[in-house]
Amino acid sequence: MTTAAEAYSRPGFGTENLPYGSFSTPNSDRRALGVRLGERVVDLAGLASAPGLPAPSNAARAAIDAPNLDALLAAGHTVWTDTRAWILEVLAAQGSGEAVAAVSHVLADVTLHLPFTVADYVDGYASEHHAANIGKMFRPDQPPLLPNWKHLPVGYHGRSGTIGVSGMPIRRPKGLRPEPGGSPSFGPSRRLDIEAELGFVLGGAAPEGEIALVDAPDHLFGVVILNDWSARDIQNYEYVPLGPYLGKSFASSISPWVVPVDALKAGRVSAPNRDTGLEAYLDDTGLPPWGLDVTLEVLVDGVPVSYPPAKGLYWTAPQMIAHMTVNGAALRPGDFIGSGTISGPEPTQRGSFMELSWGGAEPFALPDGRTMSFLEDGQSIVIRATAPAADGGTIDFGEVEGTILPATLRPR
Amino acid sequence: MTTAAEAYSRPGFGTENLPYGSFSTPNSDRRALGVRLGERVVDLAGLASAPGLPAPSNAARAAIDAPNLDALLAAGHTVWTDTRAWILEVLAAQGSGEAVAAVSHVLADVTLHLPFTVADYVDGYASEHHAANIGKMFRPDQPPLLPNWKHLPVGYHGRSGTIGVSGMPIRRPKGLRPEPGGSPSFGPSRRLDIEAELGFVLGGAAPEGEIALVDAPDHLFGVVILNDWSARDIQNYEYVPLGPYLGKSFASSISPWVVPVDALKAGRVSAPNRDTGLEAYLDDTGLPPWGLDVTLEVLVDGVPVSYPPAKGLYWTAPQMIAHMTVNGAALRPGDFIGSGTISGPEPTQRGSFMELSWGGAEPFALPDGRTMSFLEDGQSIVIRATAPAADGGTIDFGEVEGTILPATLRPR
Repeated sequence: MTTAAEAYSRPGFGTENLPYGSFSTPNSDRRALGVRLGERVVDLAGLASAPGLPAPSNAARAAIDAPNLDALLAAGHTVWTDTRAWILEVLAAQGSGEAVAAVSHVLADVTLHLPFTVADYVDGYASEHHAANIGKMFRPDQPPLLPNWKHLPVGYHGRSGTIGVSGMPIRRPKGLRPEPGGSPSFGPSRRLDIEAELGFVLGGAAPEGEIALVDAPDHLFGVVILNDWSARDIQNYEYVPLGPYLGKSFASSISPWVVPVDALKAGRVSAPNRDTGLEAYLDDTGLPPWGLDVTLEVLVDGVPVSYPPAKGLYWTAPQMIAHMTVNGAALRPGDFIGSGTISGPEPTQRGSFMELSWGGAEPFALPDGRTMSFLEDGQSIVIRATAPAADGGTIDFGEVEGTILPATLRPR
Repeated sequence: MTTAAEAYSRPGFGTENLPYGSFSTPNSDRRALGVRLGERVVDLAGLASAPGLPAPSNAARAAIDAPNLDALLAAGHTVWTDTRAWILEVLAAQGSGEAVAAVSHVLADVTLHLPFTVADYVDGYASEHHAANIGKMFRPDQPPLLPNWKHLPVGYHGRSGTIGVSGMPIRRPKGLRPEPGGSPSFGPSRRLDIEAELGFVLGGAAPEGEIALVDAPDHLFGVVILNDWSARDIQNYEYVPLGPYLGKSFASSISPWVVPVDALKAGRVSAPNRDTGLEAYLDDTGLPPWGLDVTLEVLVDGVPVSYPPAKGLYWTAPQMIAHMTVNGAALRPGDFIGSGTISGPEPTQRGSFMELSWGGAEPFALPDGRTMSFLEDGQSIVIRATAPAADGGTIDFGEVEGTILPATLRPR
């Protein structure tokens, strides 16, 4: 008799983590909700029916007997807490090792799917270093931050329908690119880029919006890694006056494992000092801290090139939730907020190639001696992330990967 | 023995129109797909089972036995054509009058719901007069149109989850408003506005995007009236550099009846002459015309104040579809594109109060002698629309209504 926690925990994916994902096995069309424990995926519906082990509440059972997180996200915060408590109880029970062996799969044997259905997708702009870098490049004669930046968490809606899971190939997009003469040219993007971000998975419901900052954490289910692929040239030509559209909408990739916010308690840190007073609906003075000490790692063809730190983000996820709904906008289960590109103060902490190559003006050297500015066909980009765990170990977010395919040459 | 066409057709809602909607009746939770004929709503699943009348194809039957348009939108263009042909055949059949009496409801007795589940929502900027008016107000020293405007149909993603059906009350949104001193203030919008638009309901699927202009009409199912409520002050403070967010996301209202594009054949007109060459993917030279001769009417508390003409829109719906997907972005059933505010060359053809009052600088007179600039609490805004029908009559879009509720004064 062993416990599953003892038998299967591995560094980064122990019982302090237990991220949720949607998986299927070969020879079956069934998609199921699972949690990752070490190198195994535990089928939650199977675990709920395992004989001789604690059973979940009825609400938890209804929410986990599902192909993905949609039902659990809709069930709301109390059920999230109950479900995680039940999973932890089961995995620590004597005999759970044998039970989990029967209702789990080796990670390498499963296919991972998008873990939830994305309702509305809002992308933020929460990193001061990123916003200032962009400002310095595009408005060199003006203050790097626009006047509104420290008064509200700037954001905009992105395309939900092109969010996919890690491994989705990324086809180089075509579009109108600026040219020196004034008239644009049409063709494949010459400035294809990444945006290394965290993605916040929301749930519960607030049909009339106006979620107070103190209540916002109750709508924050978990966190993923987000790569919001961007075509800088297409974006640059199109974005006045209504913001990014085709420069972003072709694809966004997320990591398959949704790390519950309860797994990030040891990673909660204070947000940076704010030098501008905030309106009451955004003022988190005296509230529990919601900065997240998550360190990302960007790899090009397997070689690390940058370590963006989420710890320094100026705006927190609860602030972004309060802001998104302060105008009365409804929140739905499956709503998804990106942090915006994460960049730290150091050049090796920049979360986009736009910044790493300073707009292409300063191509940066890869360890093999080559230099690059923007993404090339065939390159594989991986973003990983980790946070501290309560036991002194690590919470591993896994990774989000995408390989660049050449633009199509389709007859029109 | 009568035909339903003879018995129930009314001007604007005859068999040349037959818009689709989702309805329910009192004392029942069932939502059903219907078409409007005159002042009646015909239950399509009921009609398919009516004895002695032509039956739909299996594909059509599966798509219409549904609570709303979702299944039909997913079924694709061939099924759309088959379904409409079947409805027309049935309504013209001898004895259909009696059958329709049994499977239809008086409009006043039903509740109308959102006719489809909105996937991604993109709002456009297709009216040259509107874009130029905004440019003249905000950039008086520069050319009214930005350099990209005639090269591509500018657009951005809006919030799908706050699109509702006509009659949804509109709560005045709160947010950060610009103030002369530089720092913003928080409170209810002082510049609440409408945007009178057409909304294009899309279907079929294009998982790899790149819908050619010649194929784009196959993805255009139908058209509704869209009022994209806007808080100009909140929008003005927040929108640099990533575009509108809270100034738009609190609510958008659509008319309950989706007019099939096949009902608009007589309203198809050439788009305006274009004085700037277009890239091949947007060049509609030699293709069938997709301008739409739809005239909108804006009423404040029942009094008409403007007649925005869709006929003059610079960009067509197929161009907006080709553009939305040229970068490889997937199209899903239920994707929805707004035309952007429709304004004609005359002051009485402006589709927003921002333009009607010239940014508030020229309050305009209502027929009762009062003047107004932006929306006041308690006002009811109705937008209607009509197009020519093939028989010399009219295609009526119905209306979209919203009444302004005061901002909440909720403790935070």
